[in-house]
Amino acid sequence: MSILAIGSVAFDNITTPAGRAENVLGGSATYFSLAASYFTKVRVVAVVGDDFGAEHDHVLKKRGVDTLGIERAAGKTFRWGGQYLENLNEAKTDFTELNVFEKFQPHIPAEYRDSQFLFLGNIHPALQAAVRLELSDVKLTGGDTMNFWIQGANQELRETLRLVNILLINDGEAKMLANERNLPRAANKVLAMGPQALVIKHGEYGATIFFREGAFGFGSHAFRAPALPIDEVKDPTGAGDSFAGGFMGYIASQEEVNREVIKRALFYGGVMGSFTVERFGTERLQSLTRGEIDARFQVFRELTHLE
Amino acid sequence: MSILAIGSVAFDNITTPAGRAENVLGGSATYFSLAASYFTKVRVVAVVGDDFGAEHDHVLKKRGVDTLGIERAAGKTFRWGGQYLENLNEAKTDFTELNVFEKFQPHIPAEYRDSQFLFLGNIHPALQAAVRLELSDVKLTGGDTMNFWIQGANQELRETLRLVNILLINDGEAKMLANERNLPRAANKVLAMGPQALVIKHGEYGATIFFREGAFGFGSHAFRAPALPIDEVKDPTGAGDSFAGGFMGYIASQEEVNREVIKRALFYGGVMGSFTVERFGTERLQSLTRGEIDARFQVFRELTHLE
Repeated sequence: MSILAIGSVAFDNITTPAGRAENVLGGSATYFSLAASYFTKVRVVAVVGDDFGAEHDHVLKKRGVDTLGIERAAGKTFRWGGQYLENLNEAKTDFTELNVFEKFQPHIPAEYRDSQFLFLGNIHPALQAAVRLELSDVKLTGGDTMNFWIQGANQELRETLRLVNILLINDGEAKMLANERNLPRAANKVLAMGPQALVIKHGEYGATIFFREGAFGFGSHAFRAPALPIDEVKDPTGAGDSFAGGFMGYIASQEEVNREVIKRALFYGGVMGSFTVERFGTERLQSLTRGEIDARFQVFRELTHLE
Repeated sequence: MSILAIGSVAFDNITTPAGRAENVLGGSATYFSLAASYFTKVRVVAVVGDDFGAEHDHVLKKRGVDTLGIERAAGKTFRWGGQYLENLNEAKTDFTELNVFEKFQPHIPAEYRDSQFLFLGNIHPALQAAVRLELSDVKLTGGDTMNFWIQGANQELRETLRLVNILLINDGEAKMLANERNLPRAANKVLAMGPQALVIKHGEYGATIFFREGAFGFGSHAFRAPALPIDEVKDPTGAGDSFAGGFMGYIASQEEVNREVIKRALFYGGVMGSFTVERFGTERLQSLTRGEIDARFQVFRELTHLE
């Protein structure tokens, strides 16, 4: 099934201990779409400026991503610069130029209205909610958010969370959103806000999904998938969005959404994140094969499974 | 097979958000021995003072632990006081009174000389090495250490590491020992110092074991076991030592030491740590059944295994 993703498209300047890259194509929707494209058809709703050329569009199109929903606006594309020098888990932002992204109002092309899977990337929660409400055929919505909205648009975020089936955030965001330091208790509080499942991303320690009782079938309350211990993380940018792309893309590719599918999706999320960080920007995500992805899925399985 | 454990026996004053406990029996050797006692016979070498009574000895004896090697010295037992208020992963120490532990010189009873499994708890690395060298029948040695020795007795620690088959430390200790921030690279550096396998404990995120190529058979370089997401951590004291006890105890209970045994042992380590933190001090560890342990092992498996 096709998945519709909304989010940011950006040009990034990235500095890490492994080097530096300038003006590389990035943004949450870009990483998400490329990662999801190995599993299912992806449609993107985003906004770019005059500096987004055919060569950038081609990066997505080459992977079969439908870019009809990428709106061209007058001005420059969102630009971000940051460095990971002391800590590969957290970027120090050098600059954020929202440019055309500042006034982003998602427009859903008519051709996208039959989308059954939706991923609401990290934009203002009111825009996330509006997109969800515009699409009547959606059967599963994934969503992301961040500290900025948890603090600055909490009421709108609470409304949006009632429309999201699976929320994907990190440890710090979950604790902030729930106002609770204990992770399982924080998870329960977030689940009480609406989502049927909550994926908490732990960076190099993998991810845990918490299910509401009875959601997507029955089984244990939580499930954990590992991250691969990686000798050389070249560039952590986009790892979380790639995780979401692998996770949602795999779910959308399956006949039925049940717990076993969602657990495997959690592994595929980790797999896609692990590829992304091996090279700068989206480089690794552009050139994968499904065979490489499934081989790494097996590595993840061996990393955690007893005989 | 019997396992010989050396380490500390202490009385602890513990404050956590869940309450306070005073003068409770603790110390690395105590937690280790109780946890390991569910898997195999345990012999302890430690030192206590006049304040260590029959009722304390009974806590260990009741679990079948051989306390012949616990030496009574004139003076008071090691005492520690600490609190976990802001952060359950790290104690703020209120006081450390080494007392009789300060001059601890491990004496191995003749009856213990045939021990084939050895666990060197967190004491001065020179003492750890001396104990290992005194025992000629040992076929597997596990060891622990801490920042204090990594910084203050580095040369002696390096010598000891050549005698240790499996080292169990946490993320921060591994990074400090290797002088390397990337965890897999840090692991490789530590393995090059001597151990055939390195267990890195990640607290609430579980643990990863890294194998030297060809050690304990063949297979993937790393294996991860989860920690159970626990709603209410009453008291984290002793979780790491209980982990080591479950891990080493399970290994010592098996006919053969191979990778599959070690992987299961990593799960049992997590299981024992998860029980310990449910109550203050060693309370939970005193009253378990093997049935409860194996049931939780299954929970850990379900938490991580795909169908």
